[in-house]
Amino acid sequence: MIFRQLFDSESSTYTYLLADDKTKEALLIDSVKEQSERDKKVINELGLKLKYLLETHVHADHITGVAKMKEYFSESKSVIYQSSGVECADIFVKDGDKIFIGQIQIDIIYTPGHTNGDVSYYTNGMVFSGDILLIRGCGRTDFQEGSPDQLYDSVNQKLFTLPDETIVYPAHDYKGMTSSSIAEEKNYNPRLANKTKKDFVEIMNNLNLPYPKKINESLPANLKCGRTNI
Amino acid sequence: MIFRQLFDSESSTYTYLLADDKTKEALLIDSVKEQSERDKKVINELGLKLKYLLETHVHADHITGVAKMKEYFSESKSVIYQSSGVECADIFVKDGDKIFIGQIQIDIIYTPGHTNGDVSYYTNGMVFSGDILLIRGCGRTDFQEGSPDQLYDSVNQKLFTLPDETIVYPAHDYKGMTSSSIAEEKNYNPRLANKTKKDFVEIMNNLNLPYPKKINESLPANLKCGRTNI
Repeated sequence: MIFRQLFDSESSTYTYLLADDKTKEALLIDSVKEQSERDKKVINELGLKLKYLLETHVHADHITGVAKMKEYFSESKSVIYQSSGVECADIFVKDGDKIFIGQIQIDIIYTPGHTNGDVSYYTNGMVFSGDILLIRGCGRTDFQEGSPDQLYDSVNQKLFTLPDETIVYPAHDYKGMTSSSIAEEKNYNPRLANKTKKDFVEIMNNLNLPYPKKINESLPANLKCGRTNI
Repeated sequence: MIFRQLFDSESSTYTYLLADDKTKEALLIDSVKEQSERDKKVINELGLKLKYLLETHVHADHITGVAKMKEYFSESKSVIYQSSGVECADIFVKDGDKIFIGQIQIDIIYTPGHTNGDVSYYTNGMVFSGDILLIRGCGRTDFQEGSPDQLYDSVNQKLFTLPDETIVYPAHDYKGMTSSSIAEEKNYNPRLANKTKKDFVEIMNNLNLPYPKKINESLPANLKCGRTNI
């Protein structure tokens, strides 16, 4: 398998490129509009055929690269959770669905809580956890359809039941960490490790975070699959 | 093997943590002083024993974390090239030397050109190429003991003779790329791919880059193994 982690320093977003090294079929998870040229270049230089553009959720902090990437790779299809509110996507997935690039199987795990349409993607001992499980943190639950109750259950009933050694690749990190593991987050995540749901809800409801600075431009654009000219 | 890539956004420096998952012996390549607390925390949470602090060279853009990490992990030893000018290091290495953490062997490859004391570290299909080979770029050759002639030879006679599929982990990236491969750099590095030495020297001598903003504080501190209080 070909694997590349890519970073957008403006929004601290990680984009992930996965490909089957035999068939060269590829997918991109959580692309960022401003990085479309970079991502196109990497995909072309590696000789890959971009098949899918996966979103973990409707982002509030950056505009997705989906529209731009579909211009560059006209065969590629956008993928998002079935009730995310993004009607223009090509493929809608739900819990338990699978998608394939060559011989590589990606399992869709519905993990709501940051929004009501979050999914995590699992393949080959790696989980792409979006804004649900971050490294020693988790996504916000105080805007869009966020719910600390749901996020707690998604982590504890879904992600924390994956094998301990599973590598966690989140949608963001703000401290220069690039990956973690399920075992580490079970033991050291300050919001989630050994916390009751009551503890967690109290933590999340008292974060008093500022209003997300790019939410007003990001949400409308992302609901249109990243198209900003309509 | 346990492997973590860590990033310092201020200097765009990558720090690498490698450990043997059986013995838990670990090493850190190119640590950054300001990230010492973060790095200490990760090492402790993973239950590792920090054995070595490796430097690829004397950095001009950030102060090494070596002194701080040696305070935290008193058993750890700093490692640098024999004629780097850093007299306070614990272990001096030269081309062809090997160091070990548990069963993991790290080969030292002398690759001068950015300074006269650059080394690359090779292990298990990965090369940590310092400021010699960057992703679609290379280190500067216009300060310290930089030499475009030497850098060209280091890349072509040493790094480009590694297997094509070797993953390249550089000391820096400024575009959100986290890794590359020898094959990619052979084919797509705009300064080095299919370039004669004459081409390369001309490119490097005409970059007209600004004076490195942190060189005046970094070099004296790094020549003292990161100690800034003496």
